[in-house]
Amino acid sequence: MIKVGIVGATGYTGVELLRLLVPHPEVEVTVVTSRKEAGRRVDDLFPNLRGYISQEFSIPDNAPLNECDLVFFATPNGTAMKLVPGLLEQGVRVIDLAADFRIKDTEVWSDWYGLEHACPELLAEAVYGLPELNRAAISQARLIANPGCYPTATTLGLLPLVREDGLIDRSHIIADCKSGVSGAGRKAQVGTLFSEAEENFKAYGVAGHRHLPEIRQTMELATGEPVGLTFVPHLTPMIRGIHATLYLRLQKREIDLQALFEEAYASEPFVDVLPEGFHPETRSVRGGNTCRIAVHRPQGGDTAVVLSVIDNLVKGAAGQAVQNMNIMFGLNEKLGLSLPALLP
Amino acid sequence: MIKVGIVGATGYTGVELLRLLVPHPEVEVTVVTSRKEAGRRVDDLFPNLRGYISQEFSIPDNAPLNECDLVFFATPNGTAMKLVPGLLEQGVRVIDLAADFRIKDTEVWSDWYGLEHACPELLAEAVYGLPELNRAAISQARLIANPGCYPTATTLGLLPLVREDGLIDRSHIIADCKSGVSGAGRKAQVGTLFSEAEENFKAYGVAGHRHLPEIRQTMELATGEPVGLTFVPHLTPMIRGIHATLYLRLQKREIDLQALFEEAYASEPFVDVLPEGFHPETRSVRGGNTCRIAVHRPQGGDTAVVLSVIDNLVKGAAGQAVQNMNIMFGLNEKLGLSLPALLP
Amino acid sequence: MIKVGIVGATGYTGVELLRLLVPHPEVEVTVVTSRKEAGRRVDDLFPNLRGYISQEFSIPDNAPLNECDLVFFATPNGTAMKLVPGLLEQGVRVIDLAADFRIKDTEVWSDWYGLEHACPELLAEAVYGLPELNRAAISQARLIANPGCYPTATTLGLLPLVREDGLIDRSHIIADCKSGVSGAGRKAQVGTLFSEAEENFKAYGVAGHRHLPEIRQTMELATGEPVGLTFVPHLTPMIRGIHATLYLRLQKREIDLQALFEEAYASEPFVDVLPEGFHPETRSVRGGNTCRIAVHRPQGGDTAVVLSVIDNLVKGAAGQAVQNMNIMFGLNEKLGLSLPALLP
Amino acid sequence: MIKVGIVGATGYTGVELLRLLVPHPEVEVTVVTSRKEAGRRVDDLFPNLRGYISQEFSIPDNAPLNECDLVFFATPNGTAMKLVPGLLEQGVRVIDLAADFRIKDTEVWSDWYGLEHACPELLAEAVYGLPELNRAAISQARLIANPGCYPTATTLGLLPLVREDGLIDRSHIIADCKSGVSGAGRKAQVGTLFSEAEENFKAYGVAGHRHLPEIRQTMELATGEPVGLTFVPHLTPMIRGIHATLYLRLQKREIDLQALFEEAYASEPFVDVLPEGFHPETRSVRGGNTCRIAVHRPQGGDTAVVLSVIDNLVKGAAGQAVQNMNIMFGLNEKLGLSLPALLP
Repeated sequence: MIKVGIVGATGYTGVELLRLLVPHPEVEVTVVTSRKEAGRRVDDLFPNLRGYISQEFSIPDNAPLNECDLVFFATPNGTAMKLVPGLLEQGVRVIDLAADFRIKDTEVWSDWYGLEHACPELLAEAVYGLPELNRAAISQARLIANPGCYPTATTLGLLPLVREDGLIDRSHIIADCKSGVSGAGRKAQVGTLFSEAEENFKAYGVAGHRHLPEIRQTMELATGEPVGLTFVPHLTPMIRGIHATLYLRLQKREIDLQALFEEAYASEPFVDVLPEGFHPETRSVRGGNTCRIAVHRPQGGDTAVVLSVIDNLVKGAAGQAVQNMNIMFGLNEKLGLSLPALLP
Repeated sequence: MIKVGIVGATGYTGVELLRLLVPHPEVEVTVVTSRKEAGRRVDDLFPNLRGYISQEFSIPDNAPLNECDLVFFATPNGTAMKLVPGLLEQGVRVIDLAADFRIKDTEVWSDWYGLEHACPELLAEAVYGLPELNRAAISQARLIANPGCYPTATTLGLLPLVREDGLIDRSHIIADCKSGVSGAGRKAQVGTLFSEAEENFKAYGVAGHRHLPEIRQTMELATGEPVGLTFVPHLTPMIRGIHATLYLRLQKREIDLQALFEEAYASEPFVDVLPEGFHPETRSVRGGNTCRIAVHRPQGGDTAVVLSVIDNLVKGAAGQAVQNMNIMFGLNEKLGLSLPALLP
Repeated sequence: MIKVGIVGATGYTGVELLRLLVPHPEVEVTVVTSRKEAGRRVDDLFPNLRGYISQEFSIPDNAPLNECDLVFFATPNGTAMKLVPGLLEQGVRVIDLAADFRIKDTEVWSDWYGLEHACPELLAEAVYGLPELNRAAISQARLIANPGCYPTATTLGLLPLVREDGLIDRSHIIADCKSGVSGAGRKAQVGTLFSEAEENFKAYGVAGHRHLPEIRQTMELATGEPVGLTFVPHLTPMIRGIHATLYLRLQKREIDLQALFEEAYASEPFVDVLPEGFHPETRSVRGGNTCRIAVHRPQGGDTAVVLSVIDNLVKGAAGQAVQNMNIMFGLNEKLGLSLPALLP
Repeated sequence: MIKVGIVGATGYTGVELLRLLVPHPEVEVTVVTSRKEAGRRVDDLFPNLRGYISQEFSIPDNAPLNECDLVFFATPNGTAMKLVPGLLEQGVRVIDLAADFRIKDTEVWSDWYGLEHACPELLAEAVYGLPELNRAAISQARLIANPGCYPTATTLGLLPLVREDGLIDRSHIIADCKSGVSGAGRKAQVGTLFSEAEENFKAYGVAGHRHLPEIRQTMELATGEPVGLTFVPHLTPMIRGIHATLYLRLQKREIDLQALFEEAYASEPFVDVLPEGFHPETRSVRGGNTCRIAVHRPQGGDTAVVLSVIDNLVKGAAGQAVQNMNIMFGLNEKLGLSLPALLP
């Protein structure tokens, strides 16, 4: 059994980690921390867990995290980087679900996150935890930077087209992304109140969103050249789900896009390329770890349209973290992640 | 492995049965029928099942239902009663998720359902599949009448109070129930369109709803006397969930209601009595087979208020059917039903 | 033109007041205050008002409220009572949309609101602003206590039955009420986040809610005797709307309930008694000032079921306040309130 | 008073027309037809209109449409074209809210709508009813083709950029559009059931949607040259609202986009250009006839991002039709359309 700790388990990625880990056959959740809710039973805050967990939240400082085999950080940005060096030293492996280790360039990181990095020496070692890209490195890693939700949906949709030399115009890629409201977290704030977000649709952060440099970094590492990306996130009135609609201009017209995608993901357990002409729905992945993708070429023109959906809390956060854990510990990659999505 | 057939699998109880049965370790789904969708792949209609099932819908007439160990009927009312006698004769067991075998009195049944019963001789044998009431009989049954969604939430909330002689006024019980829209099924109709049901709340069927005689029958069998019940269903703008708010007038004031409920359900795997003062939320059971109940006595007066929540598609339909199957086949009652609800 | 001030205009009743008052032909909104948003343009916070209002929020202390003919308080409970005496002295009339002047008995008020009352001497003078009950007094009033949202829907549904001597059992009245989330206000809090309230239904405050003494007071003033009321509020996943389902036990069986209600409200411009057998929907009053009511008697038994719907922000708050203003200033009662509800 | 008839008033554009026309000070609604609901009171189907209209639906064949000054068609595509020639002959003016007269080229029309046109001779005369483009022609017109919902939001967002020679790459324009579910109408169908559309986001019609040729036609008439447009519609779980996100590649970098838009719409009563950096929300136009637009240029690059929102039932259908009526009959263009949107 893998002894697991979760730091900062009162948010939506925290409760989702618990939902997936508590019944996981190879995991024992030994520590669940929250500074704010310390002393309260976990299932008092999250009644869906009544009957599954009897622990209380503990204060991170006192919690025996060093006795864990693996610690997940489901904390706000800037928290994990303070604790990770100490844990690694004691032989504890770490998966950070926040952004502390996602960006390789500390200057870029500081620009977008407004903080100085506390352990820049670990950035080179940290593995970007997208199994479809980095499976081998993940299996050897001590420290995983679990990807953001938008970057997961977007990157899986872009990669097969972008990494092919000369296939598309890399200077002009559009990612029009729509997210459910749970992506904004479980923090008290006016903007995500029910009466503000229900029956409403809006774009936000058009001037620049933190997931832009993350996606761009992956594209540039994959191609070795600068990539021009316009990324516009939108808030849509549902709890879970991300839908990325990606527009790329084809430079080569003789290409079977459907075959390209099917081959790219033929052996991937959690990427499902839909048949030609289909449109993926976010509800088809609700609660599941799958990314479903369709590729279109309207009117046979020079624009490729890729549609990519995930559950932002699963493949976009907690599920991908468990997938990474399975790989790191040599387990079946699908363990604890193999159930169908909840539809309707 | 239990060979299972599902008749009429294109509705919400059908897809929910599939979601629960496909990963069930002791079940093999061998036949999935639909007259309307015959020849179409099941996962084409329900993309959440892509990767889990490769069958097509077959026409019920041609399907080898007689080779199954168990057949679930997820059909409209009046369908199962035509096929069940033949199946039972061939040694196939049956769980009917519709109403054909729920009412013992054929006249009452005909009054409420507007049909003549096709096999009244089976009504005495049919077991009302509420495990908390009839577990022993279920374990021996050939034919299960799976309870309705409102009756499940309401009956579990009422029973501990109603069956106690002299505790409450049995002539004046109020069941104010609220259901998510999936309870109305996956049939094309104006009244349950998104733009009709969203941002709207209404009562319906106040003059009389088919679940009224079903609840009343259970109460009268449990008490041996007539019971006065007012049942008002409401439609609430969410997909899944039933919330029953039950009002009973106490005739005996010296009673510890909390203890009464905790004892009543102490050994039940799928009924969770909440601590004093709590309010159950429907989302705490979304996708799960649990019924959560709280009992209150506002201002210490003579009115008991019971709050009871279920997922109408799980404990109110497909999950309870699987629970019944587990009992009928001597399996662990929780098999395939043991995962936490999806929250948020 | 009536010069109007609004104190505390950043909440949902505030913006709703503005929506109704800005196009009102006899009103000039001269002051809009908010301590928190002082200096910000009103239409920057509420973009639906762009093109309708060019003012900024001002600090209440500096605002020339004493130059207004009428001041609306859309503030948290406990604020109005501090400013009202000074305004009345200067000849300004006041409509308080909070609870400061709703309860006649200061002890009861302090028990439920946890504050000492700042001007108990005004409680006798304050008129409870339910026009259907107190129209004459409202027309003469300096100070109006605008009713709560639940009390408006519930009281209008109960009154015709409760005030009739010997008609119903006054010791056992059930009010099962359901509210949209906007009733909880525009305050940053976890419980009303979109991802908490969407796809969820729950009761709350079963032990006791502040609207209970308010409803009971009206019933007792109308009947001159104690009334036994059980009031259970629920949160339903929609923005606007209240649905009250009221259960009363009839003591007299020879009674035409439909006629009773039609006569009671025959001359009321904002109460619509539906034809026999109808069920009112909250969406039929969305954005409108109407209360729609239906009365049922299931199976001809001894239980009367009344269904009453309002828009909690209009007839349950801002619309009723404007109706009261129209009456106070001798205008047509429907002025500025005469448009159909928004459906769908 | 303008005598108005509405043909096919049982859908969402029909009830929205009634909501706007019934209180309109210069309109008398004399005929409301529906083949299916003939004989039923209008306010029985749409209870928000109780107290505002006392008519019944009549059968179109028998209705005295020829006595109207103006007839609105809120019918399915292909209906208006059969009746319009007769009405025009009798001096009745017509606004068609369907697509029968939107496309000038009958071959293109037949390709996309699958019908032969019944009166191609009227296509040249029919005026495309976008007041911001064709106000003068509308004021003289007998026959208006009221624009589609997507085309309204998209065209108003694109025009200022597209018509400027050399400003953007006209061969590669992206319109990523999101619509509320009411856009799909009030027809019984599985795909728009609450339980299918709630908590779900998906693209549809990527291969080609009927609004594509409509938008393209307007762009090509405005520029005199072919335009390359990729149009991807999406369904978002809300009732009302369209959000168009438009991506255009700038060819000229020295351009003040904010000034360009502000000047383009300076005198338009129903187009609101937001200040720099703002993001329009669909709820800010709910129930109102305004189109709100913002223009961005992320990171100062060569991609312009335009955000454009409307209420699909108002500016995208019934409100724009009333605006056209006002222009046609020489009334104040804002008459009956001047109230703020409903927020929240």
